[in-house]
Amino acid sequence: MRARVTIVPRPEVLDPQGRAVAHALEGLGFGVVKGVRVGRIVDVELSDGLDRQAAEAKLEQMTRELLANLVIEDFRIDWLD
Amino acid sequence: MRARVTIVPRPEVLDPQGRAVAHALEGLGFGVVKGVRVGRIVDVELSDGLDRQAAEAKLEQMTRELLANLVIEDFRIDWLD
Repeated sequence: MRARVTIVPRPEVLDPQGRAVAHALEGLGFGVVKGVRVGRIVDVELSDGLDRQAAEAKLEQMTRELLANLVIEDFRIDWLD
Repeated sequence: MRARVTIVPRPEVLDPQGRAVAHALEGLGFGVVKGVRVGRIVDVELSDGLDRQAAEAKLEQMTRELLANLVIEDFRIDWLD
């Protein structure tokens, strides 16, 4: 079973990486860009046969402990299968 | 109008960042993890009132020119509004 953890900067947090990308896109002539926010995804393959609810709890724990910084980031979990 | 560009390593490409995350998760006791792939998302806010098809073509061009490395990465574009 595979899940996708999507991690994005919280709306109220500055995103210097997104700023840099927006600036670079402007420099390339993409004047239609008004803003950019950069996040990441972590696709996790888990042992088959796990209870889905228990697996989702594990994923949430992984995210809190390692994958995301919840002070400045939000996350969501979606199943890919 | 807002779009999300999701960029992931191609399946046949090694993903050292994903390997490192998987290893770290094992170290934290998450033995249920069989594999991890790390990608990124770029949320782009565009000027309103653009033709959606033209905007999508622009986004694809941005992705090819700057956001992704298509030799080793795949991407998809989704509208967030």
